[in-house]
Amino acid sequence: MTTDAFYMNIALNHALAMKGQTDPNPLVGCVIVHHSRIVGIGAHLKAGEAHAEIHALRMAGEQARGSTLYVTLEPCSHHGKTGPCAEAIVQAGVKKVIIATLDPNPMVCGNGASILKTAGIDVEIGVCGEEARKMNEVFNTFMEQKRPFITLKTGITMDGKVATHTAHSKWITSEEARKDVHQLRHEHVAILTGINTVLKDDPALTARIPNGRNPIRIVMDSTLKIPLHYQLIQDKQAETWIFTTSNHDIEKRNALEAEGIKVIVTNDSQVIDPCNIVTYLGEQGISSLLLEAGGTINAAFLERKLIDKFIIYMAPKVIGGKNAPTFLEGAGVETMEEAMELTDISVEKIGADIKWTGYPLYETRLLKP
Amino acid sequence: MTTDAFYMNIALNHALAMKGQTDPNPLVGCVIVHHSRIVGIGAHLKAGEAHAEIHALRMAGEQARGSTLYVTLEPCSHHGKTGPCAEAIVQAGVKKVIIATLDPNPMVCGNGASILKTAGIDVEIGVCGEEARKMNEVFNTFMEQKRPFITLKTGITMDGKVATHTAHSKWITSEEARKDVHQLRHEHVAILTGINTVLKDDPALTARIPNGRNPIRIVMDSTLKIPLHYQLIQDKQAETWIFTTSNHDIEKRNALEAEGIKVIVTNDSQVIDPCNIVTYLGEQGISSLLLEAGGTINAAFLERKLIDKFIIYMAPKVIGGKNAPTFLEGAGVETMEEAMELTDISVEKIGADIKWTGYPLYETRLLKP
Repeated sequence: MTTDAFYMNIALNHALAMKGQTDPNPLVGCVIVHHSRIVGIGAHLKAGEAHAEIHALRMAGEQARGSTLYVTLEPCSHHGKTGPCAEAIVQAGVKKVIIATLDPNPMVCGNGASILKTAGIDVEIGVCGEEARKMNEVFNTFMEQKRPFITLKTGITMDGKVATHTAHSKWITSEEARKDVHQLRHEHVAILTGINTVLKDDPALTARIPNGRNPIRIVMDSTLKIPLHYQLIQDKQAETWIFTTSNHDIEKRNALEAEGIKVIVTNDSQVIDPCNIVTYLGEQGISSLLLEAGGTINAAFLERKLIDKFIIYMAPKVIGGKNAPTFLEGAGVETMEEAMELTDISVEKIGADIKWTGYPLYETRLLKP
Repeated sequence: MTTDAFYMNIALNHALAMKGQTDPNPLVGCVIVHHSRIVGIGAHLKAGEAHAEIHALRMAGEQARGSTLYVTLEPCSHHGKTGPCAEAIVQAGVKKVIIATLDPNPMVCGNGASILKTAGIDVEIGVCGEEARKMNEVFNTFMEQKRPFITLKTGITMDGKVATHTAHSKWITSEEARKDVHQLRHEHVAILTGINTVLKDDPALTARIPNGRNPIRIVMDSTLKIPLHYQLIQDKQAETWIFTTSNHDIEKRNALEAEGIKVIVTNDSQVIDPCNIVTYLGEQGISSLLLEAGGTINAAFLERKLIDKFIIYMAPKVIGGKNAPTFLEGAGVETMEEAMELTDISVEKIGADIKWTGYPLYETRLLKP
């Protein structure tokens, strides 16, 4: 590892420690080095508060003069809720700035680096760039596509089932894996499931870990079948939003709204198109969505290229069953040439289970509707 | 690692190098050490030829006197195709014998060790015992249960499918994984599939690797539907055995037998019970069977506790499809409490795919028929 990568990794680790608490802002970490010693370090903690560079510059104080500053994301150039970091860096007398990746925010992209260069600062871009981009995959997708980054989460047996043929699924995965799912919920702004899952399990969809932040709970319920006494309606642990079609019962809608539930009517008459949901969520500033749904909804999202990441917990069990469901149903493709590849696969052992992470390669293969 | 484990590992590696060429005999390796130097080494190469200890003793010659001999399996005590190794060890003047595991063959078990002890040799049993037992899992099962060790092999997508909903499956896995399957075929005495797989693919089921040894090809074909012009009938690359029910066409059977095909009629009238096949194979001295079949046959074997090992190649792809098949169908269990756990899971990357190996824990959970 080069010296630059060494310091940038420290900045990346500081940034990552804030996962789940900075949105809609990106994770950013900063390290300031002078005479081979770290003199300042910082991370962005919360939207509206100081950026990583400002924390690090404050810590460095006078030692920032003549230093090298490592930052995982291009310093901002605009007067937003806080002053522009690029100017603060110039004023502090920093000699060299090493940036992992440019800011995808069109208000910043390249401008921050320009300000630094114009002021005579030596600027280098791209050190640990891939890691930095991946760390902010949510922010980048939200900025570039104006919609949430969508992660499909599922738990399967080794023979590929998400439940027995009687729809029993408690539990496929180990306690450790289920705890990891609560961490995932904590890290997402919203979680989405279908009415069939709700009717089967009456789930709370909350993040049951210490200091867990509950996501907004979203249900696809085309005819508003959700019972009023269910947890999602009564527990008030987090907001519940229900997407429905024009084909819903007005009285049920009124009853739900009286409980404080947000009911969003799409322009669909029968089946809700995931595109309508995702566009709406983007407009509402929802940057991340965890898809914890069944195979039909999952397939509908994938067919519309609306899955950005797969997280699959695989338990060392088999249950068999020709009619046991899988996590991706719908029609599916006809030939293996149409199979969609996943890339950048990683594997991690969690309890007795394996956690897979992968990214769909929409550009090479398409799943037919 | 202890010194004993160090030398036993060398013996294990020598034994493993003969995988696929010793059956019906077990893999055995031997290392002789004198004054901290290896003076002889040997492995069992082929049934009917010298045992590992004899090769090693010949190499050691006079240096065997006063040495320590490491052997992965208890030296034999009986006059079989070769003389008893235990006596040869005594005659060579070996001082100490370290044995990884006792021989499950009831004609030997414990007797070999007794001969050595009676002759005043210091005997230690159990060094690397687990590794040695696993290395000969096939031999052990055959010895103890008088039936082949049965390995289910399958290739699946990450969404658990073995084919698209149109039954297209070429190819789920990478070229590297498929080459690994040919190695598996080479290592098995017999391979079994169902008539539906045969009708779909007209497979050769041969081991297409350099020096590959073709397994006996076994087809479950309850009404003898296999076309006479298919590869399994015409290619003469290996024996083909067809199991059928009493409900078969005699003329077709005669035609198959005229082509040199062995037709075995079970006492089943409709569906062939895997138990009948496995018992027959045991009687014929078939020690290992590779199950390369569809989900229905796989489930039938599992329900009868006739799968000893799972090998699952998992490709980083998804294909979707409510009606796409999985590798374990049948009725399946009703609740997750009945799920069958796999144990001793190992994971290996092969090309773009992951190869899983695991062993079913029949004693803790049962898959209902």
